[in-house]
Amino acid sequence: MVKRNANIAKLKGSYLFPEIERRKRAYLDNKKDSKLLSLGIGDTTLPIPSFITKEMAAFSEGLGTFEGYHGYGPPFGGEALRAALSVHHYQNIIPADDIFISDGAKPDIFRLQALFGQDSLISVQDPAYPAFVDTSVLQGRTLGFNEDKPGYEGITYLPCKPENDFFPDLDKAKGTDLLILVSPNNPTGKAFNRKELQTIVDFALKEKILIIYDAAYSSYIRSKDTPKSIYEIEGAREAAIEMNSFSKMIGFTGVRCGFTVVPKELHFEDGSSIKKDWERIISTCFNGASNIASMGALRALSPDGLRAIKKMTDYYLENAHLLKKEMISLGFEVYGGENAPFIWMRRGKKEDSWDLFNEFLTKAELIVTPGSGFGPAGNGFIRCSAFIERESLHQALSRLKRLYALT
Amino acid sequence: MVKRNANIAKLKGSYLFPEIERRKRAYLDNKKDSKLLSLGIGDTTLPIPSFITKEMAAFSEGLGTFEGYHGYGPPFGGEALRAALSVHHYQNIIPADDIFISDGAKPDIFRLQALFGQDSLISVQDPAYPAFVDTSVLQGRTLGFNEDKPGYEGITYLPCKPENDFFPDLDKAKGTDLLILVSPNNPTGKAFNRKELQTIVDFALKEKILIIYDAAYSSYIRSKDTPKSIYEIEGAREAAIEMNSFSKMIGFTGVRCGFTVVPKELHFEDGSSIKKDWERIISTCFNGASNIASMGALRALSPDGLRAIKKMTDYYLENAHLLKKEMISLGFEVYGGENAPFIWMRRGKKEDSWDLFNEFLTKAELIVTPGSGFGPAGNGFIRCSAFIERESLHQALSRLKRLYALT
Repeated sequence: MVKRNANIAKLKGSYLFPEIERRKRAYLDNKKDSKLLSLGIGDTTLPIPSFITKEMAAFSEGLGTFEGYHGYGPPFGGEALRAALSVHHYQNIIPADDIFISDGAKPDIFRLQALFGQDSLISVQDPAYPAFVDTSVLQGRTLGFNEDKPGYEGITYLPCKPENDFFPDLDKAKGTDLLILVSPNNPTGKAFNRKELQTIVDFALKEKILIIYDAAYSSYIRSKDTPKSIYEIEGAREAAIEMNSFSKMIGFTGVRCGFTVVPKELHFEDGSSIKKDWERIISTCFNGASNIASMGALRALSPDGLRAIKKMTDYYLENAHLLKKEMISLGFEVYGGENAPFIWMRRGKKEDSWDLFNEFLTKAELIVTPGSGFGPAGNGFIRCSAFIERESLHQALSRLKRLYALT
Repeated sequence: MVKRNANIAKLKGSYLFPEIERRKRAYLDNKKDSKLLSLGIGDTTLPIPSFITKEMAAFSEGLGTFEGYHGYGPPFGGEALRAALSVHHYQNIIPADDIFISDGAKPDIFRLQALFGQDSLISVQDPAYPAFVDTSVLQGRTLGFNEDKPGYEGITYLPCKPENDFFPDLDKAKGTDLLILVSPNNPTGKAFNRKELQTIVDFALKEKILIIYDAAYSSYIRSKDTPKSIYEIEGAREAAIEMNSFSKMIGFTGVRCGFTVVPKELHFEDGSSIKKDWERIISTCFNGASNIASMGALRALSPDGLRAIKKMTDYYLENAHLLKKEMISLGFEVYGGENAPFIWMRRGKKEDSWDLFNEFLTKAELIVTPGSGFGPAGNGFIRCSAFIERESLHQALSRLKRLYALT
């Protein structure tokens, strides 16, 4: 009789967002009339610009004609989309053939696990988007979860806290094989500036560690000294794989399209090409993003598409600014929200994330995300997402003012 | 420095279809004026019915409005689509909550690998769609490829040939944990009838082997005594995971939408629920099919959608019949084409698949698929796909007549 993948049993609790959903439903079961507002899951709320949705609609309709029908696309993504990313997203610092179209960052994070030797050691920015650690656990790269010193045994956590300006102590990563970084960071909102990124790339090159760089929020970067891609840094093509997605860029969370860069300069310990193996994994385990989604993504890289990306991300950033300002005035310790659509905050240093989550849920009927779900260094914090309509945000702020200005 | 996944090095040559593409390009480099026709890769050629593409177009346009915008969908797929599959595809023998929407069978085959213990033993129908074996190799369930007795060491191949009416010797699978079957079979076209399927399910229950059943071509079944789903068989919900896809059903190869059934009755050796682990894997490693694709899939399950599926598959089956008849008259030994859009054939028992591939390519400018790409028992055969427009098929048949009627 077939055995369970023993690594699944190691995964602590359920995945973060289903657990939030469970608590939300439990609350609603008791209070059916509640008007919950969500600052929780990072799901976009603004419609996609209509010139993009019209393009997808026209392509969809075309699929109903002999002239417009398309079956399987090229295995690594359409030439036009890869070329547009090279020119308009990467300003020609990355060639089209190093860019691979995906159905989003999360599925590619899982596929990435198949690239590396079973005994590869992982260091990870803490906190970070949980899919990196969870897929590493699934793949058997860790031992169990240690409750006493929270975290999976076998993973090197690099705590990023206010105390170190959210910059990891890279020395701790020495001796590991993979360095996983999320910048702008989900959940803290920290985006590495040029100097910090150069330090990271130099460290990785010297220590021969491969960087996995999740740049899914790069379109929210506004600081001039903060690169939107790690490849703006000298040497990065010899040091990093970068992932990105149209989800938070232009509201494609449900449409599904992303991209991963695997530069041909990258090599494994035995000298063989990482890109060649990635091509084999993609050919074997994936059949491409939806061609309709790809067509929308291509349109998003046109001049008016790029303007629309700026406008949409500006809107969410303005939400983040309003939220940040309010929470500071209510006495919270608040970070992020400048180059990212997330606010990262805590009240006291000894509070538990889930307690704060419950307080927001039961006293203000607001959903937020407990920071502990993103890694041990996230405990005590909550993440508020700026993906909300302005009117709902103002309602949420009123509830928070009512709750905390009085207490 | 990070090490390569040693299992990738075990994979023999490149994945089948990229290798065909390589040879095709090499041929075209020398003969630029060639008008190649393809009976090769199983890619659909007929347009999607326009009432389905219009539905997707309308949904796409809606994504450009506040009322019609949707972000992330439910993790396991939309309720309406799961319910429609339960009723219209499974005639209520499978409940909606056991059905999981995917972006296609191939990515789900890869995700399935994460369900099982590392030392799980695999038996596989031979020949079969190569993604099952290749992802098993990637996952480290095998040793290397043995050229002398072709096949990966550690996998139990169950040869299906004309000599055994393409029905595997199940006794060979005893002692393995997973039994992988593709029916209607890609590439041979064999579809298990009710009696054969009952034998398989009884065997699996008695031997406590989990069946992975790929039914991606079930909509091509026309024989009355041949079930379209393994769950029509008594006991199958305790014995099998079934996978399917809208790709070959209604031309969604580029649109991307599929589904996998993991019945709640299934358990691992330790008694824990297979479905629960599958939910965790999907939550952790996947973010859903494109919502536009899902909307088209839902429309394909309406009454006119079901009629359109019948009409489209009838068209390809008629191609298969024409092709089969012609190849028989030209002296080939021909199988399949009755309940599947594939013809499986050989000329002499000692011929090599790639030699026959090259003969078709260079002498008739036709692309076919070498049978050896689907497993050791496929050698000597070639697969012809019926996914071609009728006019092109007639051209292909003329070329074949010219080539073989004269020799």
